[in-house]
Amino acid sequence: MTEDRTYLPVADSKAPYFVGIDLGGTGVKFGVVDDLGRTLAWHKIPTEVERGPKDASLRIGKAVKDVIVLAGLQHDQIARVGLASAGTMDIPKGMLIEPGNLPGWENFAIRKAVSDACGLSVTFANDAAAAAYGEYWLGSGRDSKSLLLLTLGTGVGCGIIIDGRSLDGVNSHGAESGHIIVNPSDDARWCNCKQRGHLEAYASATGVTRRTQEMLDANLPSSLNERLKDGADLTTLMIAEEAEEGDELSHEVILDTARWLGIGIVTLIHTIDPACVLLGGAMTFGGNESELGREFLARVKQEIDDRAFAVLAKRLRLDFASLGGDAGYFGAAGLAREEFMTL
Amino acid sequence: MTEDRTYLPVADSKAPYFVGIDLGGTGVKFGVVDDLGRTLAWHKIPTEVERGPKDASLRIGKAVKDVIVLAGLQHDQIARVGLASAGTMDIPKGMLIEPGNLPGWENFAIRKAVSDACGLSVTFANDAAAAAYGEYWLGSGRDSKSLLLLTLGTGVGCGIIIDGRSLDGVNSHGAESGHIIVNPSDDARWCNCKQRGHLEAYASATGVTRRTQEMLDANLPSSLNERLKDGADLTTLMIAEEAEEGDELSHEVILDTARWLGIGIVTLIHTIDPACVLLGGAMTFGGNESELGREFLARVKQEIDDRAFAVLAKRLRLDFASLGGDAGYFGAAGLAREEFMTL
Repeated sequence: MTEDRTYLPVADSKAPYFVGIDLGGTGVKFGVVDDLGRTLAWHKIPTEVERGPKDASLRIGKAVKDVIVLAGLQHDQIARVGLASAGTMDIPKGMLIEPGNLPGWENFAIRKAVSDACGLSVTFANDAAAAAYGEYWLGSGRDSKSLLLLTLGTGVGCGIIIDGRSLDGVNSHGAESGHIIVNPSDDARWCNCKQRGHLEAYASATGVTRRTQEMLDANLPSSLNERLKDGADLTTLMIAEEAEEGDELSHEVILDTARWLGIGIVTLIHTIDPACVLLGGAMTFGGNESELGREFLARVKQEIDDRAFAVLAKRLRLDFASLGGDAGYFGAAGLAREEFMTL
Repeated sequence: MTEDRTYLPVADSKAPYFVGIDLGGTGVKFGVVDDLGRTLAWHKIPTEVERGPKDASLRIGKAVKDVIVLAGLQHDQIARVGLASAGTMDIPKGMLIEPGNLPGWENFAIRKAVSDACGLSVTFANDAAAAAYGEYWLGSGRDSKSLLLLTLGTGVGCGIIIDGRSLDGVNSHGAESGHIIVNPSDDARWCNCKQRGHLEAYASATGVTRRTQEMLDANLPSSLNERLKDGADLTTLMIAEEAEEGDELSHEVILDTARWLGIGIVTLIHTIDPACVLLGGAMTFGGNESELGREFLARVKQEIDDRAFAVLAKRLRLDFASLGGDAGYFGAAGLAREEFMTL
């Protein structure tokens, strides 16, 4: 289903303008932003993965033109377009390689296809890096020189921004920090990537529901049993709700997740030394607005305080991300702007 | 003891020229290099830590002038000086904070002191970062766009170079990757930094000798017992020698060290995605020239192959560093050149 919204009027905005695109497995979001990162117009179309990447590129190109009109701008007022997508990818070549959420789109030169379809230059980026850039430019990290964003969902995504530059890596695998090894044991948990002991195996929603299910299977008492008796699927939202209602097992799993995240973050700050680490994604237990979210964050911080160099633990800003699902198109636009400014 | 050497004649060199300084706990090395990184002259003075940082800065300033004369150059032919030293430090402020190898030199503005003493602009850098830059510019990593250098000695040092820039971190603690957590257990080994489970606890010379000593204390058979019976101190050189003579215990410790290094490197390449990882420092078991060194490297590679994303494991270049003890002054000069070029 296509959706449209308009926000800032052109008269109140500041040139140059950029279009940010967040290409996901089910939907593609578009935002026209001005030089200060304010959104003039927003648009969304379904991805329709099965129609393949050529068809999608044409539809994305048309949607870019549509959202520009929606914003009240002329085509030639757009300085550059940013396109964010999940890996694996080859960023310098502008190619999708094996995008996990876009089956059948392998080895497709999407940057050129979208650029041809919309008639504008396109900056290509990893979606986690774009989200991190969005938070750096406009969100929770806007006062930080450098930051690391961990997105907690089905997997653990990571984006790293240092002095306004995304750490892409030479093989476009930079910031795959969901796959740092936090447990080297032969009996460590399996990660979604089929290796053992990665941060994602412990700190993703998949890891959380799996550990919870194991505890329930071991007949440990929990109010979750009541929720699941009609055959419902166990979700992290359900675990969070029961934790908030006082279920000890749910509470324990959530704090254990925070502990593993803290261990991973110590490793990351001892390597990157960023000003700020942000937690985003679907599994943030309500974030700053919720007691559970704040308790989760405090437990992560405690583990960092216990294990990191004192000066780094003291100076690090640890917080939740603030842009939610908009971080991707904001960041894609921001990375396009960054490239435009340095060209 | 002061030492001097001259290499490339001025007539064969290419301007501009740089002086690199590697400030260590016992000696200070100076090299004058040309724009291609070739050394014109080399000089060394004792640090004499106990005389304090003001006195040392004056002597370092004089030594800079001396080595310029030794190279056959005029003072005004030097574009910039690079000064590398161990942390902790504040790179933007040009200050030593708590340099572990320079007791009594805390909170000293060394960049300004050395600059005033030699009358030249100074770029200040972490010594591990400088060594990494040296390898990137002139050594084993000279064909790589980005690299990570791990120096194996008393501790495990790390320098990360991405697109010609050193990852310094916002608190000048970037690339403290000796202190990534490779073992999260409550009974993990103690690191030199008084925390548990860090890479340095397993992959430093300190870690290697400690583990070996524990095995000897447990009365496991080893030809090392013969070497130690007269009260000699156990060293990694001794362990390497006995391993080469067929001692199984020594051999096992060395390969186990390689395994831990591999685990740490997987974490680092899943975060940084560098073109190349180099191993340097005093404990490289003879490097590429030795069968033991090659076996050590192969075991590290095997662990990476077993645990990293296949494409990264396949494309990563893993090798020994090649500049040895010269990497520091080369890299300091190179970082000064980098700053000179971007000013």
